[in-house]
Amino acid sequence: MDHTKNNGIAGRLTALRAAMKENGVSWYLITSTDPHASEYVCAHFQCSAFISGCTSDNVRILISDEKAWLWTDSRYYISAAKELSGTEYILMKEGLPGVPSVPQFLKENCVPADGCASVLAFDGRCVDAGRGLIYRKTAEQCGLSVNGSLDLISPLWEDRPALPSHPVRIMNADLCGSTAAEKIADIRADMKAAGAKLLLLARLDDIMWLTNLRGGDVDMNPVALSYAALTEDALHLFIQPSEITDPVRKHAAENGIVLHPYEDNEDSIFRFIEKEGHVPVMLDSSAVSDALFSCAREYAPKLIRRMNPTTVRKAKKTAAEITSIRRYYLQDSVAVCKFIYRIKKWAADPDAAPMTELDAAALLDGLRAEIPGFQGLSFATIPAYGANAAMAHYAPVPGEESTLQREGFLLVDSGGQYEGATTDVTRTIALGPLSDEMKRDFTLVAAGNLRLLTAVFKAGTNGSQLDVLAREPLWVNGIDFGHGTGHGIGFVLSVHEGPQRIAPFRPGSGSDLPMESGMLTSDEPGIYRENEYGIRTESIVLTVPYAENEFGSFLTFECLTFAPIDLAAIDPDYMDSGDIARLNEYHAQVYEKIAPYLEEEERVWLADATRPL
Amino acid sequence: MDHTKNNGIAGRLTALRAAMKENGVSWYLITSTDPHASEYVCAHFQCSAFISGCTSDNVRILISDEKAWLWTDSRYYISAAKELSGTEYILMKEGLPGVPSVPQFLKENCVPADGCASVLAFDGRCVDAGRGLIYRKTAEQCGLSVNGSLDLISPLWEDRPALPSHPVRIMNADLCGSTAAEKIADIRADMKAAGAKLLLLARLDDIMWLTNLRGGDVDMNPVALSYAALTEDALHLFIQPSEITDPVRKHAAENGIVLHPYEDNEDSIFRFIEKEGHVPVMLDSSAVSDALFSCAREYAPKLIRRMNPTTVRKAKKTAAEITSIRRYYLQDSVAVCKFIYRIKKWAADPDAAPMTELDAAALLDGLRAEIPGFQGLSFATIPAYGANAAMAHYAPVPGEESTLQREGFLLVDSGGQYEGATTDVTRTIALGPLSDEMKRDFTLVAAGNLRLLTAVFKAGTNGSQLDVLAREPLWVNGIDFGHGTGHGIGFVLSVHEGPQRIAPFRPGSGSDLPMESGMLTSDEPGIYRENEYGIRTESIVLTVPYAENEFGSFLTFECLTFAPIDLAAIDPDYMDSGDIARLNEYHAQVYEKIAPYLEEEERVWLADATRPL
Repeated sequence: MDHTKNNGIAGRLTALRAAMKENGVSWYLITSTDPHASEYVCAHFQCSAFISGCTSDNVRILISDEKAWLWTDSRYYISAAKELSGTEYILMKEGLPGVPSVPQFLKENCVPADGCASVLAFDGRCVDAGRGLIYRKTAEQCGLSVNGSLDLISPLWEDRPALPSHPVRIMNADLCGSTAAEKIADIRADMKAAGAKLLLLARLDDIMWLTNLRGGDVDMNPVALSYAALTEDALHLFIQPSEITDPVRKHAAENGIVLHPYEDNEDSIFRFIEKEGHVPVMLDSSAVSDALFSCAREYAPKLIRRMNPTTVRKAKKTAAEITSIRRYYLQDSVAVCKFIYRIKKWAADPDAAPMTELDAAALLDGLRAEIPGFQGLSFATIPAYGANAAMAHYAPVPGEESTLQREGFLLVDSGGQYEGATTDVTRTIALGPLSDEMKRDFTLVAAGNLRLLTAVFKAGTNGSQLDVLAREPLWVNGIDFGHGTGHGIGFVLSVHEGPQRIAPFRPGSGSDLPMESGMLTSDEPGIYRENEYGIRTESIVLTVPYAENEFGSFLTFECLTFAPIDLAAIDPDYMDSGDIARLNEYHAQVYEKIAPYLEEEERVWLADATRPL
Repeated sequence: MDHTKNNGIAGRLTALRAAMKENGVSWYLITSTDPHASEYVCAHFQCSAFISGCTSDNVRILISDEKAWLWTDSRYYISAAKELSGTEYILMKEGLPGVPSVPQFLKENCVPADGCASVLAFDGRCVDAGRGLIYRKTAEQCGLSVNGSLDLISPLWEDRPALPSHPVRIMNADLCGSTAAEKIADIRADMKAAGAKLLLLARLDDIMWLTNLRGGDVDMNPVALSYAALTEDALHLFIQPSEITDPVRKHAAENGIVLHPYEDNEDSIFRFIEKEGHVPVMLDSSAVSDALFSCAREYAPKLIRRMNPTTVRKAKKTAAEITSIRRYYLQDSVAVCKFIYRIKKWAADPDAAPMTELDAAALLDGLRAEIPGFQGLSFATIPAYGANAAMAHYAPVPGEESTLQREGFLLVDSGGQYEGATTDVTRTIALGPLSDEMKRDFTLVAAGNLRLLTAVFKAGTNGSQLDVLAREPLWVNGIDFGHGTGHGIGFVLSVHEGPQRIAPFRPGSGSDLPMESGMLTSDEPGIYRENEYGIRTESIVLTVPYAENEFGSFLTFECLTFAPIDLAAIDPDYMDSGDIARLNEYHAQVYEKIAPYLEEEERVWLADATRPL
């Protein structure tokens, strides 16, 4: 997508409005998701980017015959504003006071005049059902008619990328700790307990987990475009025949998986539901499209709406997965330590060649690529220098990237996909002199990260409760950050996965769900000062048992990420003795785990970088 | 109630079973509440104590033709077992694994045999509507018929105490910061926003708050038995005419309050609903009786069920209330400090006369009684020595109380009702040598109390999130306590009031509601070791603004309780430098606030008791 050609956008909007008029549509709605409620979407489904030029992950667009609005969240305010400049789009900064949500906007602006017909239309395949239900209800309240199966983008999109097609591969059951057949049996037990006869799955990581398959259809996400329908007799898997190899066919047969073709327009799964869906159907409205949900509702006598049973089972890693995860996280940490060493060496050498953000990313990506079992990145490395790091999801545009200076902070957020793990880690590195405020902020973030990292908690404690442990040192200083503190992480799957979430309390967001043994979660507080700098320290933790006694069951975290927290940026005046003890203890572990894998010069550096305060 | 005569209980059960048989009732249910969903109940409504001898606050009883079961919670396991001994009652320890709740028990044990009729009956006036709805639904699922308006206790209870009747008094609007008419206007605005035309209130503290009246019908709770029905035109107050004085009549007229008689059997409010209830009615099913709820449902075209709007407004104290609260809490704290001084002096003098738990309580109660504006206790002082303190709601039975020894801990939980405040405070006092474990536990409780006390938090943070700050030092040591960390406190009203609650996460319990500015809440972690000792440190905190900046709004707590935390029981090895700084800072405040009110000898003691570590 070339989003500098904003004239292209104007032409597309003109064509779209002509199609709207032809179809009697007053308001057309487009979201950035695909039929699988994905966060990251393959090029074929990037309709919102096609029509607006905005490449953010979390977008909703509303078009009228005169105007165009685009909603996105705080991570993308700055990049979206750049991408939309020169177009007619009005950027709606979701979350800011006074900015209405899409439903609020509909209520305030889209009520038809008396006696006038007015239609809100969208392509229900690319709107998740949870949102779709809200849009439908809001439209009804406003007196708008709804057409939820109108695709006006495909006819305009002449050079639309084809559906991706990459052969799927089989995950070794020994590596997963469980065969697909065993997982399917567990999920059938969940269905039975809920009184369901059919479970519909559209979320790609749920389907990959359940089938022990992996694909390559979405950049950096090892998933294959697919649907699954689980009955008492079989798991029906809808997948492109071009992606199936003989071993996969054999794996399917051995695990009770029946293969069906995947079709762009969801037709094959719709036909299946028409035939087999006359039973109690279980589905998760946040994990299927509005179109699939509507189809199921048409035929099923009863919909059992709840979180996919795969989601919680997938989040609790098996013993085999944990063994593999520990091994790869250690190697990934070694790469990060080597990277920090090189960056520090560069910063200390005024004669070293200039280094840009993209050079730094390439250096780290190269170190990861050397790890046996490396299969690619888990997301595009974020190398954010100086004020760029104040944008939580900054991505340098080639040619516009910053050149590192020997002062201030370089924030690097990165991760890899390996044969036996998906990793994620952020460190913020001092490249030279820092202001007192920078040091204070860095120290508070480190203290928050370590307080959460070393937390002990009663079984049943949820992520919103743990969240305050990381934020308290910031809050005491009147500081906060706008993103969650921790997200779940998949096993050779999505770098962001639910259901758990360490974040401020919001019912239904995952922060109200208990943190359970075996869950893998990030711990990543930060401080962002617009136009100045950004700091984030992210390690990944595994929930493990701590104690079981007359007071109950207690859990704690085992840290899997071992990379120094830059002592050059620590001001111990902002730590209490507990914070200092936690930092020293963490650094002792980093040295013990990482030193054996380093060259002598690197080892000497690490010893100093992890010295006790 | 003489609950040593357990033969009396047997006779009552025989008579009750005869009445059940006569009325065709298979299962009769009795709870410990009154028609106002009160926690503390006047003698007239203590039906559960009459029929069982058990005086706990939180009881449910189920009687069959052969057996009798009594449910209560962990605070009362020990006292209930004592009170029920020698009766046929089976004690159901609610909350223990394997102990079914009443609805679970009904499902497991009360399903009638095929073709048999079986009736569950209760007096819906003395069951709250929330529970009543659950019992009715469960009975339906079991195939039981329900009779929710069968009072079988009154006919048996020959010497039943009459309804209490004490004159009500008027709270000065200057002290409350708001007239009754102003409060009524605010609540009418809440009703309008919710589309309600009639609000039904049965909870006594809600009604007292709204009318700026106080009564004396429930021991230590300055409330008058009453109902209120708020319409667009008037506040209809149902109250015993014997309680009304001329000034109250004038106050009512000035504030748009229309007086109606209160009747034991709820008849007057039922007749009112029959006449005026044909409109959308707002009520809180946890705050009205099953009978009142059923009556409203019969006539209202629509029930708007939600928390009473009075509850949140009452919890956020006005500036005038806060001024008064600060003043009385200081005087109350002075009494507590003088008490600790006397106890410490007694403990240091081997020749001093023996002192029992009840002597200690009398000493403290006497000191409180000297405070100008003292109106009584806010609950019966809990003076728990040694192992007695392991029972969180211990009440010494006269004649069976413990005599203090010059070793171990004395836990004292107490509070007063004053003209301008309701107080609550707990301190645990070392009377002599302590084991290392006692010191460790005491230190962890102090650390937890102080971490919560000094918390800073983002606006919107709820009580379950703050709860972990108090528990974390205990959890790290594999210890926990079974009660909440903090409850709300009324203004010259209930010592326990909602809606906020600092406690483990449970949706709907109040721990999921944000802690708001102006709320008054306890901070009372503890550690209880059965048959050994109990420790609790409780101070009361007021939520106040902390900062407002680009990161948002932050709140913190202002501590209102000033009494030393016993340094003789502190082991600094279990504190980090932050904990020590917080303790020293708190003690410096205690000295500064309290010293001016002490005699020289007391002042010298306090200086030592609050010395920096």
